[in-house]
Amino acid sequence: MSMGTPMANYASARRAGDFVFVSGVVAVDPARKAIVASYEDLPAQAREQLRSIGYDTGQMTVDLYEAPAVAQSWFVLERIRQIAAEHGARMEDAIKLVQYFRDLRHYPFYNRVRGLFYPAQPPASTVVEVARFMPGDACLIEVEATIHLK
Amino acid sequence: MSMGTPMANYASARRAGDFVFVSGVVAVDPARKAIVASYEDLPAQAREQLRSIGYDTGQMTVDLYEAPAVAQSWFVLERIRQIAAEHGARMEDAIKLVQYFRDLRHYPFYNRVRGLFYPAQPPASTVVEVARFMPGDACLIEVEATIHLK
Amino acid sequence: MSMGTPMANYASARRAGDFVFVSGVVAVDPARKAIVASYEDLPAQAREQLRSIGYDTGQMTVDLYEAPAVAQSWFVLERIRQIAAEHGARMEDAIKLVQYFRDLRHYPFYNRVRGLFYPAQPPASTVVEVARFMPGDACLIEVEATIHLK
Amino acid sequence: MSMGTPMANYASARRAGDFVFVSGVVAVDPARKAIVASYEDLPAQAREQLRSIGYDTGQMTVDLYEAPAVAQSWFVLERIRQIAAEHGARMEDAIKLVQYFRDLRHYPFYNRVRGLFYPAQPPASTVVEVARFMPGDACLIEVEATIHLK
Amino acid sequence: MSMGTPMANYASARRAGDFVFVSGVVAVDPARKAIVASYEDLPAQAREQLRSIGYDTGQMTVDLYEAPAVAQSWFVLERIRQIAAEHGARMEDAIKLVQYFRDLRHYPFYNRVRGLFYPAQPPASTVVEVARFMPGDACLIEVEATIHLK
Amino acid sequence: MSMGTPMANYASARRAGDFVFVSGVVAVDPARKAIVASYEDLPAQAREQLRSIGYDTGQMTVDLYEAPAVAQSWFVLERIRQIAAEHGARMEDAIKLVQYFRDLRHYPFYNRVRGLFYPAQPPASTVVEVARFMPGDACLIEVEATIHLK
Amino acid sequence: MSMGTPMANYASARRAGDFVFVSGVVAVDPARKAIVASYEDLPAQAREQLRSIGYDTGQMTVDLYEAPAVAQSWFVLERIRQIAAEHGARMEDAIKLVQYFRDLRHYPFYNRVRGLFYPAQPPASTVVEVARFMPGDACLIEVEATIHLK
Amino acid sequence: MSMGTPMANYASARRAGDFVFVSGVVAVDPARKAIVASYEDLPAQAREQLRSIGYDTGQMTVDLYEAPAVAQSWFVLERIRQIAAEHGARMEDAIKLVQYFRDLRHYPFYNRVRGLFYPAQPPASTVVEVARFMPGDACLIEVEATIHLK
Amino acid sequence: MSMGTPMANYASARRAGDFVFVSGVVAVDPARKAIVASYEDLPAQAREQLRSIGYDTGQMTVDLYEAPAVAQSWFVLERIRQIAAEHGARMEDAIKLVQYFRDLRHYPFYNRVRGLFYPAQPPASTVVEVARFMPGDACLIEVEATIHLK
Amino acid sequence: MSMGTPMANYASARRAGDFVFVSGVVAVDPARKAIVASYEDLPAQAREQLRSIGYDTGQMTVDLYEAPAVAQSWFVLERIRQIAAEHGARMEDAIKLVQYFRDLRHYPFYNRVRGLFYPAQPPASTVVEVARFMPGDACLIEVEATIHLK
Amino acid sequence: MSMGTPMANYASARRAGDFVFVSGVVAVDPARKAIVASYEDLPAQAREQLRSIGYDTGQMTVDLYEAPAVAQSWFVLERIRQIAAEHGARMEDAIKLVQYFRDLRHYPFYNRVRGLFYPAQPPASTVVEVARFMPGDACLIEVEATIHLK
Amino acid sequence: MSMGTPMANYASARRAGDFVFVSGVVAVDPARKAIVASYEDLPAQAREQLRSIGYDTGQMTVDLYEAPAVAQSWFVLERIRQIAAEHGARMEDAIKLVQYFRDLRHYPFYNRVRGLFYPAQPPASTVVEVARFMPGDACLIEVEATIHLK
Repeated sequence: MSMGTPMANYASARRAGDFVFVSGVVAVDPARKAIVASYEDLPAQAREQLRSIGYDTGQMTVDLYEAPAVAQSWFVLERIRQIAAEHGARMEDAIKLVQYFRDLRHYPFYNRVRGLFYPAQPPASTVVEVARFMPGDACLIEVEATIHLK
Repeated sequence: MSMGTPMANYASARRAGDFVFVSGVVAVDPARKAIVASYEDLPAQAREQLRSIGYDTGQMTVDLYEAPAVAQSWFVLERIRQIAAEHGARMEDAIKLVQYFRDLRHYPFYNRVRGLFYPAQPPASTVVEVARFMPGDACLIEVEATIHLK
Repeated sequence: MSMGTPMANYASARRAGDFVFVSGVVAVDPARKAIVASYEDLPAQAREQLRSIGYDTGQMTVDLYEAPAVAQSWFVLERIRQIAAEHGARMEDAIKLVQYFRDLRHYPFYNRVRGLFYPAQPPASTVVEVARFMPGDACLIEVEATIHLK
Repeated sequence: MSMGTPMANYASARRAGDFVFVSGVVAVDPARKAIVASYEDLPAQAREQLRSIGYDTGQMTVDLYEAPAVAQSWFVLERIRQIAAEHGARMEDAIKLVQYFRDLRHYPFYNRVRGLFYPAQPPASTVVEVARFMPGDACLIEVEATIHLK
Repeated sequence: MSMGTPMANYASARRAGDFVFVSGVVAVDPARKAIVASYEDLPAQAREQLRSIGYDTGQMTVDLYEAPAVAQSWFVLERIRQIAAEHGARMEDAIKLVQYFRDLRHYPFYNRVRGLFYPAQPPASTVVEVARFMPGDACLIEVEATIHLK
Repeated sequence: MSMGTPMANYASARRAGDFVFVSGVVAVDPARKAIVASYEDLPAQAREQLRSIGYDTGQMTVDLYEAPAVAQSWFVLERIRQIAAEHGARMEDAIKLVQYFRDLRHYPFYNRVRGLFYPAQPPASTVVEVARFMPGDACLIEVEATIHLK
Repeated sequence: MSMGTPMANYASARRAGDFVFVSGVVAVDPARKAIVASYEDLPAQAREQLRSIGYDTGQMTVDLYEAPAVAQSWFVLERIRQIAAEHGARMEDAIKLVQYFRDLRHYPFYNRVRGLFYPAQPPASTVVEVARFMPGDACLIEVEATIHLK
Repeated sequence: MSMGTPMANYASARRAGDFVFVSGVVAVDPARKAIVASYEDLPAQAREQLRSIGYDTGQMTVDLYEAPAVAQSWFVLERIRQIAAEHGARMEDAIKLVQYFRDLRHYPFYNRVRGLFYPAQPPASTVVEVARFMPGDACLIEVEATIHLK
Repeated sequence: MSMGTPMANYASARRAGDFVFVSGVVAVDPARKAIVASYEDLPAQAREQLRSIGYDTGQMTVDLYEAPAVAQSWFVLERIRQIAAEHGARMEDAIKLVQYFRDLRHYPFYNRVRGLFYPAQPPASTVVEVARFMPGDACLIEVEATIHLK
Repeated sequence: MSMGTPMANYASARRAGDFVFVSGVVAVDPARKAIVASYEDLPAQAREQLRSIGYDTGQMTVDLYEAPAVAQSWFVLERIRQIAAEHGARMEDAIKLVQYFRDLRHYPFYNRVRGLFYPAQPPASTVVEVARFMPGDACLIEVEATIHLK
Repeated sequence: MSMGTPMANYASARRAGDFVFVSGVVAVDPARKAIVASYEDLPAQAREQLRSIGYDTGQMTVDLYEAPAVAQSWFVLERIRQIAAEHGARMEDAIKLVQYFRDLRHYPFYNRVRGLFYPAQPPASTVVEVARFMPGDACLIEVEATIHLK
Repeated sequence: MSMGTPMANYASARRAGDFVFVSGVVAVDPARKAIVASYEDLPAQAREQLRSIGYDTGQMTVDLYEAPAVAQSWFVLERIRQIAAEHGARMEDAIKLVQYFRDLRHYPFYNRVRGLFYPAQPPASTVVEVARFMPGDACLIEVEATIHLK
C-alpha cells in the first residue's frame, strides 16, 4: 500500500536504475484514515471525469453499487500518477501494472476509468482476483506499478 | 491477459530498456474467443510434444481430467515464447515467471509442460493459488513473464 | 519457491543486468523437507532476535498461535538475505518485495520481523492475501524479491 | 415466463377490464430455446441503443461481464413492449413493474436500459433479489408487468 | 397465507371493484394446524385426480419424494378455487397467479396439478424461487391469486 | 423502493383507474440517505406507539436486537399511509400488501406493528422471505401496496 | 441438565456450605421425555403470565416463531425456582446465572420472561452464544444457577 | 455483561458471603454505547501500558489488526478491577476467571494484557471459544470473574 | 487449562475459603507437549479401567474413532482428581463440573468414563458444546471443577 | 462405465462361470462423447415409451427439469439390456442392480423407467446416493448389473 | 432396500445358482412405515442382546446419541438373517457384506452389533461413507448381502 | 478394508464356490498402522514400476501432489494381487473391481497404475466418488474385488 501517511514500515516507491518500483496502492485516504467508498470521497474534477464516462449518476441506488469500485479505481491510478510525477515521469511511463481485484466483476468499471489515465499507449497489464487486501475488506482493488524513466 | 486480438485496453507487452514486460497471459484462443479446454484445441505438434510426456492419452476419462490444465499450460507458455520471438528473444530469455493457478493440484501438469519450453536453464519462478482469472472460471492458469534482452 | 534443494524445475534466482529476480520464497526447510512451524525450527540467533521483539515467549499456548507466522517470516526473509549475499548484495538492496499471505491477520507478525531485516530504508512493498501456496496449506507466507545490484 | 413459443401451460398475458396482467417475462429466445447471454443475441437496433448508453463496448473482457444482464434487460422490456402493443397500448401504459433479480448488482445495468423504454413518466416499481428463475440459472432478471388500457 | 382459521391479523381476500385480491396461500390444514405433507392429508377425490396424472402411486419410496409438492399444489389451488367460489366466481376467473417455490424442481409437479384446475384457458403466471414461507420450511409453494369478477 | 427523494428512475406510485399501485417501499430515510436502524431514527409519536405494544424498552441489549425490524416496519407502513393520503385515501384502502422479508423471524415484530395501522379490517396479505433488497443488506423488509380508491 | 427424571449420571444440584450449585438446566419435560416447544407444553398459570408480557398471542404464525424460546425460558427458570425452594430458598437467592443460548436473537424473549422471576433485585448474569445443548438441537437455552442460602 | 449503564435487567455483580460474583463483562463503553474497537477508545495511561508490551504501534495496518482484541482485553479486565475495588478488593482477589473468546487466535494478545493486571499470583483460568456475545459481533472477549474477599 | 508444566500465565487452581477453583482442564500431556489422542497415551491401569467398560478394544478401526474422546475423558478427570488430592480432598468433593465439548456426540463416551470417577454421589453438572479449546482442535473436552473442602 | 467406445482401460463386462459382471454404466453417448441430457438424445421408440408413462411432455420448462434423469435412466438400462443380449440373456436375467444416484430425488423418475424394462419379476436392488461419477457432474445415475445365465 | 412391505418395484432378494443376492437393506419398519430410531422400536430380545454389549443404558442423554445407529444396525442385520433363513441358510452363509454409512463414526456401534450376528467366522466386508439413503436422512446404515447356499 | 493385521472383526476374503469375495481394500500399512502417503512407503520395485510410467519424479512439489493417490493405487492393487495368489489365482482372475474414490480427479493416476497390474485383459470396473473411508480422511481409494477361480 502506498499513501502519504505511512501505514506501515515500507516505502511508497523505490528507484533502481531507470526503474521506479511502486508499492501496491490501495484506496485509503490518508487524511481520513478511511477507505474510499463513494464519489463524495473524490475531488470535484475527478467526479467530472467519471461523469464523462457515465458514472456518478446521482441516482442513489445506481451509485451505491457502482461507486466503491469506480471511485477506488480513480483514486489508486491517480496516486500512481502522482508518484510518477514525483519522479519526473508521466502516467504513460508506468509501463506495467499488476492489478489485483477482490471481485473481477469490478473489472469493467476499472477498465473504463483506466482509459482516462492512458489515453494513448496502454500499459502491460496483469489482472487476477485474490482474497483480500489491507487494511480491510472494503478495499476492492490494489495496483502495483513499474515506472520506466526514459 | 495477452492475446493476438485485444480483449481490453492494454498492451500484450511493453519494452523498457533491456526488459520486455509481458502482460499476464491466459489461454484464450483469439480466433474462437474461447478458453482452451481440450487437446483438440491445440495444433498437432503440440499434441505430439504432450504425448511424449505422457498426456493426451486418448482415453476419454483420463484426458477429460487432465486436458484443461495440460493444454492451457502449453498454450500460455507458447504465447510467451511467441512474444519473446517478436522481440528477437528466445524462451530462455523469459528469465522470470509469475504463475497464478486456480488450483495448485494443476502444478504437476504445468511443471512437466514447462520442462518442454525450458530444456536448459529454468526461470526464476513464483507460484501462488488465487481466486480466479478473466475472462471466466474455466481459465486455470495465468502467467506473467519478464523477458531480458541480452 | 526457492530453497537450497530443488523442489521443482526452476532457478532460485536469475540475474538480468543489474537486477536479480528471486523466485517466490516459502519457509520449507530443505534438510527436513518440512514446512517451518515452530521456533524450534530456527537457529538460536534467530530466536534471540525474535525474543527481542516480544515473540518466542516460552508460554506454550501463546507460542502455539504465534510461532508459525513469526518463524516463517524470519525464515523467508533470511533466505532472501542469503540470495542477496550470494550476489554480493545486502538485504537493503532487495528494493521490492511482493508478499503473499494466506491470512492477512499474520501481517503484524511479519511486519515486526521485517523490521529486523530493514533497519534503515524499507523496500517497496506489495501485500495481498491469496488462496494457498506450495507445497502445502501450512505455508502461510510467500515473498518474491527484486534485488538491485548497485 | 412469457414467450412466443409456449414453455408451459399458461398465458403470456390476460386482460381483465382495463387491465392487462402480463406473466413474468424472462429472456428466453423462443426460436433458439436458449437464454439470452450476449449482445450477439440481440437485433442490430438494440445494440445501437445499448451502445448509446455505453454498453456493447467491443472489448471482450468488459462485455463478457456486462452483456448477460444488459442484454436480458433489453430483451425482457422489449417483450413487454410488444405485449402492450398487441393490446393497443404503449410501454408507458405498463404502469407497474415487479422486477426480480438473481443479483442486485445487476440493477445499475437494468436501470440504464429501462431508461430507454420509459423516456418520460416511469412506472411504479418493485425490486427484490430472489433465488432463481426458470428455465435455468443463466436467467438473471424476471419482470412482471401490469398494463393499464386508458 | 390464507386459511379458514386465522393464522395472523389479515384477510384471506379483499374485494376491490371487479377484482378480488387473494392473500398468498400456503398448504396449511387449519383443522390440524399442520403443513400438508402426504397424500393422506388430502380428500379421496383429490387423490383420484392425482392418480389420473400418475401420482399417488402407492410405492412408498416414490410417493415419499413426490407427495409433499404434489399434495401442496392441489391443496393450494383448491383453496383458491374455494375463495373464488365464495365470491361467485370460477377458477378460470383467477386470471393471474404469482407462484413462489422454495425449489423450482417442484415446478413440473405443480404444473401437472394446475392443469387439473385450468382445463381450458390458463392464467397469466409468474414463477420465482424464493427463500422460504411461513409457517415453516416444510411449506414448498405459495400462490397469490387475482380474481376478476366478470 | 419509494421515498421522497428519488433513488432511481421510477415513480413512488402510479394511479390507474380506481387503483393506486405503490412501488415497493423500503425504510430509507431520504433526508439522511440512510437505512432506518434504531428507534432514534423515528419521530417521537412513533416511539410512543411502539412502546404501547412492548417495544422500544430502553434496555440496550433488548432494543439492539428488536429495533431494526420494528422500526423499519413502522417506517415502511407509515410511508404507505402517506402515499394513500396523497391520493385522498386512508390506510384501510391499501387493500393488498405484498410483504418481502430477509428473515421471516422478523414477522412477529412486523405483525404487531401492522396492527397499529390496520385497527379494523386487515388487508389481503402475501408474505415471502427473499434474498435481499436495495439499497443494502441492512434493509430487512420491503412492502408493496395496492390502494383502492372508493 | 437438571430434571426430575435422571437423564444421565449426575445430580440436579449439590450443596456446599451456604451455596447450592445447580446443574445446567434445559427445557426437557421429564414426563414426556420431550423438549418444550410450544405454549401448550406449559401449565395454565405460566401462559397467563406470558400473555401479561405480550406473548402467547393466539396468532398461529406469530406464536410459531416466538413460542420455543419464550416457553423454554419460563420452563428453565421455573425449574431453578423449584430447586431453590427444595433448599428452602427463593428465586432471588439464585444470585448468579450463566445463560447459554444457541441464538442470541432469543435474548429479548428470555429477558422479558426473567423479569417475571426477578421482580426486585436481579442476579449477576453471564450470557454467551454457544453451539448446542443436550439432548438435541431443539434446546435453545441452558441456564446454570448458583444459589446462596442466607 | 457489566457496565456502568444498565444494558438489561441484571446486576453487574452480586455478593454472597465472602464471594462477589461478577456478571460476564464485555467491552462496551457505556458513555458512547459502542463496542471498544481501537486504541483511541482507551484512556492515555492504558495506551502507555499497552505500548510497554509492544502494542499501539502507531502503524496503521498493524494496529488495525491488533487493536480490537488488545483494547477490549484491557477494557474488560480494568472493569473487573473497578468492581473489585468497589467491594474493597484488589485484582489479585479475582481468583477465578472464565474467559470466552470468539476466536482463540486472540488469546496471545489477551494473555499479554492480563499479565499487566496480575503481576504476581495469577488466577484460576478457563478459556473456551464460543459463538458470539451481546451486544454484537464486534465483541471479541467476555470475562466472568469470581472475587474472594479475604 | 491446567497441566504440570505452565502453558501460560495462570494457576492450575486457586483456593478461596472452603473452595478450590480449578482452571479448565484439557488433555495435554505436559511431558510430550502433545494432546492425548490414543489409548497408548494413557497409563496401563487407565486402560484396564477403560476395557472394563468396553473401550480400548484392540480393533484398530473401532479404537480409532473412540480413543480420542475416551482417553481425553479419563485424562482430564484424573487430573482433577490429582488436584483434589493435592488439596487433601477426594474426587467426590469436586461437587460441580462445567463440561465443554467440541462435539456432543462424545458425551456418551465421557459419561461412561465419569462413572468410574464418581461411583457414589455424582456432581452437579453443566454440559455445553462450544467452538474450540486451546491449544488446538484435537482437544475435544475441557472440564472446569469446583472442589468443596469439607 | 461401459460404452461401445473405450473410455479407459477396462472391460464393459466379464463372464465368470454362469455370471456376467457388468461394469458400472453411465449415460455417455459414445458417438458424440457427450453425456445424455435431453429427450432429443434418445431414439424415437425410447421417447414413445417415456411418453406412455407421462414424460417427454413437450412443455419446455417441465421437460427441462425432468429430461436429464429420465433420459439417462432409459439409456443406462437399455445399455445393460444390450450387454445381456450380447451374452444371450434377457433383461430379467440381470438379477441384481446396484444403482448409484447423485441426488435421490431422481429415484421416482428412474423407478418408473425401470418398470418398462422389468415388466415381470424385478431385480434385487441396492440404491445409494454418492458424490459423483465420471466423466462429469452431468452424470446423474450409474448402474452396475450382475447377469445370471440360466 | 428390503422390507416385508414393498417400498418400490424390486425384489428383496434374488437367487442365482448357489447364490442369493439380497437388496440393500435399510432399517424401515414396514408395519409403521417409519425409520427405526430408538430402542423402543426393537423387540425385547434385541434389547437384551444390546444391553449385553453395553448399549440401551436407560440413561436418556446417552441412549439418545447411540440408539439410532445401534438399533438400525441390529434391525438391518436381523432382516438379512431372516432372508437367509427364508432360503434355508444361516447368517454365517451371508459371506459378503457391503456396508454403507452416512457417518463412519457410527462404525464402532455397528461393529459391536455385527459381532452378535457373526460369533464365529466373519464375512468379507466393504465399508464406505456415502451421501444418503432412501427413504430419508434418518437412515444411517444400508447393508447389501451376498448369501452362499452350500 | 483388508490388511494382514486385523483392523476389525471381518475376513479379508471369503471363498464361495469358484468365487473369492475380497473385502474392500484401503492402503493401510499394517506394520506401521499408518495410511500410505508417499513413495517412501512403497518397496523399491514398486517405485521403479511407477517411475516407468512417469511418477515418483524426485521433484518435491510434483511428488507431493501426486504421491498419495499414486502410491495408494499401487498398494491397494498389490494387496488384491496377494490375496488372489493366496487362493492360487492371478491378478487377471480378479475379474470385477468396484473402485471408490474420495476425489475422482485421482482417477487418471489410478488408471495408469492399474495398467501395470492388468497388462492384458482388463476387469469389469465400477467407479464412483463417495464421502470417505476408514480409518481416516487420508484414505483416497478403496477397491473391492471379485476373483474367479477357473
